[in-house]
Amino acid sequence: MISLQSYVGGRWVTGSGDPKTLHDPATEAVLGDVRPGGLDFGAALAHARTRGGPALRALGFRQRGELLKALAGKLHEHRDELIEIAARNGGNTRGDAKFDLDGASGTLAFYAQLATSMPAGNCLPDGEGLQLGRTPRFWGQHVWLPRPGVAVHVNAFNFPAWGMGEKMACALLAGVPVIEKAGTPSALLAYRIAQLVIESGILPEGAFQFVAGSVSGLLDLLGPMDAVAFTGSSATGALIRGNRNLVARNVRVNLEADSINSAVLGPDPEADSDTYGQFLANVVVDMTQKAGQKCTAVRRILVPSGQLDEVADALRERLQAIVPGNPLQADVRMGPVASAEQLRDVRAGIDRLAAVAQVVTGGSRPLPGPGYFVPPTLLRARDPDAAVLHELEVFGPCATMIGYDGSAAAAIDLCNRGGGSLVASAYSDDRSFVEQLVLGIAPWHGRVWLGSEKTQGQALGPGAVLPGTIHGGPGRAGGGEELGGLRGLSLYLQRTAVQGDRAVVGRTFGGEGQPG
Amino acid sequence: MISLQSYVGGRWVTGSGDPKTLHDPATEAVLGDVRPGGLDFGAALAHARTRGGPALRALGFRQRGELLKALAGKLHEHRDELIEIAARNGGNTRGDAKFDLDGASGTLAFYAQLATSMPAGNCLPDGEGLQLGRTPRFWGQHVWLPRPGVAVHVNAFNFPAWGMGEKMACALLAGVPVIEKAGTPSALLAYRIAQLVIESGILPEGAFQFVAGSVSGLLDLLGPMDAVAFTGSSATGALIRGNRNLVARNVRVNLEADSINSAVLGPDPEADSDTYGQFLANVVVDMTQKAGQKCTAVRRILVPSGQLDEVADALRERLQAIVPGNPLQADVRMGPVASAEQLRDVRAGIDRLAAVAQVVTGGSRPLPGPGYFVPPTLLRARDPDAAVLHELEVFGPCATMIGYDGSAAAAIDLCNRGGGSLVASAYSDDRSFVEQLVLGIAPWHGRVWLGSEKTQGQALGPGAVLPGTIHGGPGRAGGGEELGGLRGLSLYLQRTAVQGDRAVVGRTFGGEGQPG
Repeated sequence: MISLQSYVGGRWVTGSGDPKTLHDPATEAVLGDVRPGGLDFGAALAHARTRGGPALRALGFRQRGELLKALAGKLHEHRDELIEIAARNGGNTRGDAKFDLDGASGTLAFYAQLATSMPAGNCLPDGEGLQLGRTPRFWGQHVWLPRPGVAVHVNAFNFPAWGMGEKMACALLAGVPVIEKAGTPSALLAYRIAQLVIESGILPEGAFQFVAGSVSGLLDLLGPMDAVAFTGSSATGALIRGNRNLVARNVRVNLEADSINSAVLGPDPEADSDTYGQFLANVVVDMTQKAGQKCTAVRRILVPSGQLDEVADALRERLQAIVPGNPLQADVRMGPVASAEQLRDVRAGIDRLAAVAQVVTGGSRPLPGPGYFVPPTLLRARDPDAAVLHELEVFGPCATMIGYDGSAAAAIDLCNRGGGSLVASAYSDDRSFVEQLVLGIAPWHGRVWLGSEKTQGQALGPGAVLPGTIHGGPGRAGGGEELGGLRGLSLYLQRTAVQGDRAVVGRTFGGEGQPG
Repeated sequence: MISLQSYVGGRWVTGSGDPKTLHDPATEAVLGDVRPGGLDFGAALAHARTRGGPALRALGFRQRGELLKALAGKLHEHRDELIEIAARNGGNTRGDAKFDLDGASGTLAFYAQLATSMPAGNCLPDGEGLQLGRTPRFWGQHVWLPRPGVAVHVNAFNFPAWGMGEKMACALLAGVPVIEKAGTPSALLAYRIAQLVIESGILPEGAFQFVAGSVSGLLDLLGPMDAVAFTGSSATGALIRGNRNLVARNVRVNLEADSINSAVLGPDPEADSDTYGQFLANVVVDMTQKAGQKCTAVRRILVPSGQLDEVADALRERLQAIVPGNPLQADVRMGPVASAEQLRDVRAGIDRLAAVAQVVTGGSRPLPGPGYFVPPTLLRARDPDAAVLHELEVFGPCATMIGYDGSAAAAIDLCNRGGGSLVASAYSDDRSFVEQLVLGIAPWHGRVWLGSEKTQGQALGPGAVLPGTIHGGPGRAGGGEELGGLRGLSLYLQRTAVQGDRAVVGRTFGGEGQPG
């Protein structure tokens, strides 16, 4: 039993106020707690601004990349210990935990590698220079420079390692110190990672601070050079985006929120084809990995109406083979959801879906014994137009099949009813169908994943977020954008147009010859 | 006497409700009015979404560029008529009016030219493709596609032509229909331009709608694919950014707001140098062009303390030669401010500055006769640390000299106290000073303009917004970004990562071989 500490202002601090209890979601055993109060956020921000930020920016992009490499190594070194914590506090199977932890270290390593091709200093040219005057003498060059602010990262409970790691990687490489708030239910893993980061001494003091508990009040203190990156529910996201101080001071906000992602089986794949096989396999992984608690997981499965029976049978068979259990047991392929609150929400959500859909397998009924378990639950919509299908994210091992007529137009219409999603996947070898579908759904999605004969065995499924391509989506998905290589740094950098004599601007700030 | 109409839903509509009177600011003669009510915004949005948007997107980037070219030509064709309206309703001298009108047609023409190097279709690749899997088979390509929404442009009164033109250019080229709200005091010019746009038939029906009056209520109807671009005061900007519907639905918002821009005279220029001469000339232009009603105009003039007397003398002499008057008279070099409300605000602002600064020339005293006239007003700060100097934008022909010790560090500190500005200019031939200054102020500015011996006679001053470089600034300046070539389209496009078989993704969505 432990009360998690926060690391702010250069020391570990025990919180105060009403504790929130942390559980093992497989056994409901109490593991510790977090307490919301007792932190001096003004001092934390000052510490980041006066110590962490200047120390990071004294290094330049390339050296900061080396710090990320060392952090990746540190996580990898403690992988087994962290996997065990992820099982106990997160309900993660070994596979789930590796997905989270290797995602974190892999993303840190990706940005470390990216840094090797960046300038040594802090000035990153953006595009080519351009002539602005009557002659080439008067010249313009856009540059990106680190903002002298603080990055506040409000992380979700579902990826305590990866979520924190991917946000940290971009901010730290940009040269901006971070304050990491852990998602409460799974805070033990984030806490242990924070301990490793601090103990390692890899980062300069003030570059990394960690909050277990609450950041209530912190947002009211942020200024124009700061940034907030949030992952979590739409409702909390809207509270952050609408925060009076953030609005008044034009503080940058990036949100990753709910998303009713879809998978589309095209009209062409035969049941014995590789494309069809990928479709089934990816849907099952998305529904059951992390017990379906992924913001990128599929929630709507679009199937040509004539194939609904066959797909329902195939998915039912695979899903019924996955029995939720304690992830510390080696043969368990799916753990519980993260908390009693999640369990309640998921069951209520399944009931809401079941009002407009038939339950193919699983359902909302309680399972015997302790633990926050939900069986893999597949539904089949009676009415594809029912709004709840396109509006309700059930954040657990649950998805709904929806029939469509096999045309790209119908699939586009259904996908886009999600109101903006992180990802859609499509499975087809019909080029014309794929092209039409992508052009129709891309504006409503941050990412489109295409499965075809040739991708068999080549790729992680649509649920995996890769650091080279952006993560985020419009509208309902939060309207944000993270990762995508250098694109992910832009939240923390200021783009400025420098205009003047070409001999000065081009040489000092352009591609040739970097300052400092 | 005319009551301005709006063009919505395919027809001209007369507003209803309490009229706001439009004046000739030089004579206070009544020219017409605008009325806030009577428009069906739901129908206007539907018209844009179902007619204007699809018609624009049926064209592709290159053909849309041709529309912009035709619009630029139409404005140029009516230049003399428009200059006269700008004088009567805007208080613009001929030079001011040309700055606004040629800015509009020039920006439209710039984007028309840019379009010739864009894809013919609607799919704009973003960067190179990249390997995502174990082999190059699994591939990623970021693309930009037009969002199927509506661009709502809330324009400021100071640049009725340019402001509307630059926003329109980016949205229309992106493939997004616009609803243009005119700044009320100068709405006659925007109205006439709207008439020309509609009469010309250049744009497909629904691609351009025009609102004279108010957009109150319109923002509550926007959805995730829409965007709002606003230019005006911080206070109104915060109301827009904080609008409950825009927050809840993650509607994109771009703000250009107040800005306490600075000009820095470096420690080196001698009084007879070209660099020093540019400094004086640009400051005088910025203070008096458009009667100082430019969001990019200089408000703080940083001068090495030892040179304050000499600079004050030189600026006083030049400013006193500029006597405000009716811009319809050919010899008048500066007109009135735009409205009685502006006059009141500018006078009150000068008084607030005069509490911490000495008036070198001009001042807040009323001038004889009718018209909203303010003399060019230069102040000299007694205390450089007085907060009002760095926080109050007096939106008229007014700026304050502030002494500093000639070091880059001191200049950086003062410039950045503006809390985020659109532009800072610096005049120096000392490379080390310039480099240090730029790296220090760039994160707080959208643009930095460098004057030196070599830029003499080569460039428009820092007040001019060029379409090739970004316009916007962090924090106080709104946190937005417009123009900058292709960068200016990003508000209206969705960036999406397409992942799949390289043979499909690379060929269909990558650099080689554009769809449709």
